[in-house]
This record gives sequence, C-alpha cells and structure tokens, in this order.
Amino acid sequence: MRFASCFVLVALVFGSVLPARAADPPQWALALHGGAGTISRDMDPALVASYRASLGAGLETGKKILARGGTSLEAVEAVVRFFEDDSLFNAGRGAVYTHEGTHELDAAIMDGSTLACGAVAAVTTVRNPVTLARLVMQKSRHVFLVGAGAESFGRSAGVDFVDPHYFDTRHRWEQLQKALEKDEYGTVGCVALDRHGNLAAATSTGGLTNKRFGRVGDVPILGAGTYANNRSCAVSGTGIGEQFIRHTVARDVAALMEYKGLGLEEAATLVVFTKLERGDGGLVAVSRTGEIAMVFNSTGMYRAAADSRGRSEVAIWEE
Amino acid sequence: MRFASCFVLVALVFGSVLPARAADPPQWALALHGGAGTISRDMDPALVASYRASLGAGLETGKKILARGGTSLEAVEAVVRFFEDDSLFNAGRGAVYTHEGTHELDAAIMDGSTLACGAVAAVTTVRNPVTLARLVMQKSRHVFLVGAGAESFGRSAGVDFVDPHYFDTRHRWEQLQKALEKDEYGTVGCVALDRHGNLAAATSTGGLTNKRFGRVGDVPILGAGTYANNRSCAVSGTGIGEQFIRHTVARDVAALMEYKGLGLEEAATLVVFTKLERGDGGLVAVSRTGEIAMVFNSTGMYRAAADSRGRSEVAIWEE
Repeated sequence: MRFASCFVLVALVFGSVLPARAADPPQWALALHGGAGTISRDMDPALVASYRASLGAGLETGKKILARGGTSLEAVEAVVRFFEDDSLFNAGRGAVYTHEGTHELDAAIMDGSTLACGAVAAVTTVRNPVTLARLVMQKSRHVFLVGAGAESFGRSAGVDFVDPHYFDTRHRWEQLQKALEKDEYGTVGCVALDRHGNLAAATSTGGLTNKRFGRVGDVPILGAGTYANNRSCAVSGTGIGEQFIRHTVARDVAALMEYKGLGLEEAATLVVFTKLERGDGGLVAVSRTGEIAMVFNSTGMYRAAADSRGRSEVAIWEE
Repeated sequence: MRFASCFVLVALVFGSVLPARAADPPQWALALHGGAGTISRDMDPALVASYRASLGAGLETGKKILARGGTSLEAVEAVVRFFEDDSLFNAGRGAVYTHEGTHELDAAIMDGSTLACGAVAAVTTVRNPVTLARLVMQKSRHVFLVGAGAESFGRSAGVDFVDPHYFDTRHRWEQLQKALEKDEYGTVGCVALDRHGNLAAATSTGGLTNKRFGRVGDVPILGAGTYANNRSCAVSGTGIGEQFIRHTVARDVAALMEYKGLGLEEAATLVVFTKLERGDGGLVAVSRTGEIAMVFNSTGMYRAAADSRGRSEVAIWEE
C-alpha cells in the first residue's frame, strides 16, 4: 500500500513532465461536426474528398490553438469561423436559402467555466455569426439578440459585415429549388476541453432550406443545440431543430452526467437513441475529463475529433 | 399486514368515488405568477388590492377549467390570456416599452404529455401571444417563430390582431422614462396538472423595459423560462431572463427530479437559491403528483395556487 501511495505521489508531481500514458486523461480534446442527415454513400468521391479535407483543416485550426495552451472558447470560435467561411457547410458563406430566397443565420457560444453564453438569430449581413454571438456574450448585458437588433448591436461592437449576396452560392440555390419538395438542414459546431480544464461549445447554421415565418431552430437555444458546463460536458448538436428544442438535447446529456452519474458516451447515446427519433440527427460532445462522443441516428454526420494523446480522425458515415 | 393490504386495495378501488383525504394526491393542481422582483411592501394598498383581485380572478379562470375535467393545456393558456388582457401585468396589454418606445412580446407553451411546444418572440400586433405560441405548437411544423414571420404565420392561422397602440398604457410609459435609469421586468405564467394526469406550462411577457437590439429573454426559450414533462413537473419562471437561460432553470428543476430523485420543493429551492443569484427572480411549478412549489429569491412574487383538495391562495410577499 505504501509503495502504491508513493507511486501515485511521484506520478502526480511528475505528471506534467512525463510523457502521457494511455490511461492518463487527455490534456485537451476537441470534436466538431459539419451537419448530420441523409448523406448518400454514393456521393461523388471528389465531393467526399472536399468534405474530408475541409473537416481536417477545421480540426487542425482547433488543434493548434489547444496544443499551444489556448482556451477552449478561442478554439470553438475559430473552428466554427473556419466553417462559416467555407461554402461547403450550411453556416456563414454556405448558408441555405429561406423560402423568400434570402439568408437568415443563427449561432450560439457558451463558456463552461462561467456559464456565460451568447446567441443570435435571423441575422442577414454578419459574416461570422459565431463571433457576433461571442460579442453578445462578452460585450452586452444580454444573452440572445435577434434580427435587425442583433445586427445593430454588431455594428456598435465592431463585427465584420458583408453584402447579403455574399451568402448566395449556386449549390444552395439549386437546393432551394429542390427543397420546394423536401427540406434539407445542416449545421456546424465544435466542442473543446482546454489545458486549463475549461469546456466550451459553439454552433452556427443557416437554418432550414426553404424555412418561413422567422423560424428559429435549436442552434441559438442554449440547452437545445449548444451547451457547456465544466461540471459535466460541452455539447453541439445538429439535426431537426424542433426535436432538439423539445428534448432540451444538449442540456439533457449534461444533466444525465451531472445528476445521474452516466458517462459521456452513455448519456449521449441514451439521448440520441431513446429520446430523439431515428433520422433526427446527432451531436458531438467532450467531457470534463476529455472523453469524446460523436453520436448520430441519421445515415451520416460530417465530423472530426482530436486530443492531446494523438487521436486525430475525420469521418462521415459509420465506419 | 394483511389488513393493511386489504385497506390499500379498497382505497384503490373506491378512491375515485370516496371524498378526498388529506393524504390523497390532488386530482388537479394549478399555480400561477404575475412576475417577481423588487416589490415594495409600502405599495399603495389600493394597488395591492387590485393585484390580489386580478391574481384571484386568474386563479378562478384556471380552477373552473380543471375542476370540470378540462386539460392542463387549456387551463394554462386561458390563465395566461386572462393576464395578457389585464394591463396590470407585463404581458399582452400591459407590456413594457422597448428603448425605442415600442412593444415586443414573447410567449411559450409546452404540453408535458407529448413534449409538444411552441414559442414566439418579438411580436408587436398580436393580442394574445400565448395563443399564437399554441398555434405554432399545433398548426406549424416549427417550435419557435420570431418577429414579422411569426405575425405572418399568425395571420394564416387566424389569431386576433390589435393596433400596436393597444399596448400603450400610461403607467408603462412612465416606467420607461424612469427605466432610462433602472431596468424593470415582469412576466406572467401558469402551470397545471389536470385530472387526466397531464402537465402543461405557459409563460408570456413584454420583456425588459427599455430593452434594445432585439433582446429576447428566457420566456420563449423552452427549458429556460418554460418547461413541462409528465415524467417530472411543469415550470414557469420569472426574473432576469439571461440568468434563467444560462442556468436552463425550468429544465434543471425537472432534471433534478427525473435524474436525481429530488422532490419538487427541494429541486425548485436548490435551483432558485444555489444556481440563481439573490434578486434574480423565482418560479412556480407543479409536479406529476400535484405538489405545488412557488419559490423566489427576490423581495416578492405575484402568485396564486389552488388544487382539488381545496387549496386556494393568493400572495405577493413571503407571509
């Protein structure tokens, strides 16, 4: 017993300078998604390669920040900004069209160490909605701003604006034409644990193709599509927003860990497979101890994960 | 033991026809609030009498529906409509002014038996936002509609519209003038358990006096200010919306019951006194077994409660 105790003491003292062992929890961890849904395995291989390359580049963006000791908040914002600037995903530049042929973007961010959070909905000329959400969190007394008011706040806070035509992309326009028959959705999101032990989550979306009536989904609803709390985990969801709101999905995963003692994978699986319905979507999550869960009940989810122990992967379907 | 078992069996068989005993759970239960905050005990006695009369009349509205076997959904909508039509409370007719001297109303409703829910934010010409929220729940594929889009849906769904000046009341205008120094808030809400064992919650508000930038608070955020789930309880909150969003207050009370096995009063007290900060506000809640909790950390909360066992009370401060 005494030898064992000494070993634990030595390990604690030298833990930060010794190389990590497989049993050590990771010092940082990162997971991201670029949407879930009916993703055909017959997709053009060149397009698959584009998606995988972009997911990999987004992952590198976050890895660099976390590896050099940057904060989880900085990492999730940077990763989501990266995807917002990429027209492949339904967020920022690649946002889908509304029924009226315009774009309305939503985003949220949450700091698990303080529960500070910010969200915006229905913005039309902000290049990076996730950055506007972070400014709402840090520079306003409020949590959630919508529409023209959110843009007006963005002007006073100094966010980048673009012409609404910046969001006009040919493949999304064609998608709108098809969507007059069938709805499509997509989202980007990122969760991270940093070396300081803090969790953060961020999510951004162009919403539902062909959406009407000022519809807002789960992304800017803290607790539905986005949630982070150092007591449990950080979660970013993607799928049918109405289902994520109804089941308070992101908060539910965290509550099952905090109040019922479930592990991250167990909590995420329970919510995605027993509370949501098949095809609703999925989520990525990181726990306070650096575990990663990427769970979905749709045919695929664009996703990637990495941690300080060398994990680094990109995936689309179940492999 | 055998006699005791027989008695239980007899009680189960005849429970529905025998008069209720103190130990029986109530067949229906109802709690409502008209806002929490710094409510001075030096308030004009005539105004106190007006508040108490209105809270009592709202309570009667709900009691009648539940006593005749109506649904909890019907009861919470009717009670909240009653307060929306009363200029005393910050919801509907009595909505506070925004910074720009206009009115932007938010509301939500949730059915605990199906988790169906509906919410609207920033509507300006809908007489009863809670009814619009119910129509979103029942007649759209969506959960949350904002601004002009929500009103446009309301027109197609046949809701009552009013001229925006309908919401102009002298005392709210005077309050705006004062609020250029200090913010004021308020909300109305109702939770109910019906004879069929179903829970429901509804909340409605004019938001924060002097609010800017399209600020949306906790009321239309399912899980923050409003939540109902037959597994646990129905909750309606009132107070500083940003705090209710950050702490997913309504969902947290339900999660503590569902996942940690806490009783309603214990769960509500834990959330209001250890997660929220003093002065943030309070909530009313009804559990699946008909317990009622009305908990607040501000100086007062306009509130009332009733159940099938004859409980019927109206209160403002701690008594």
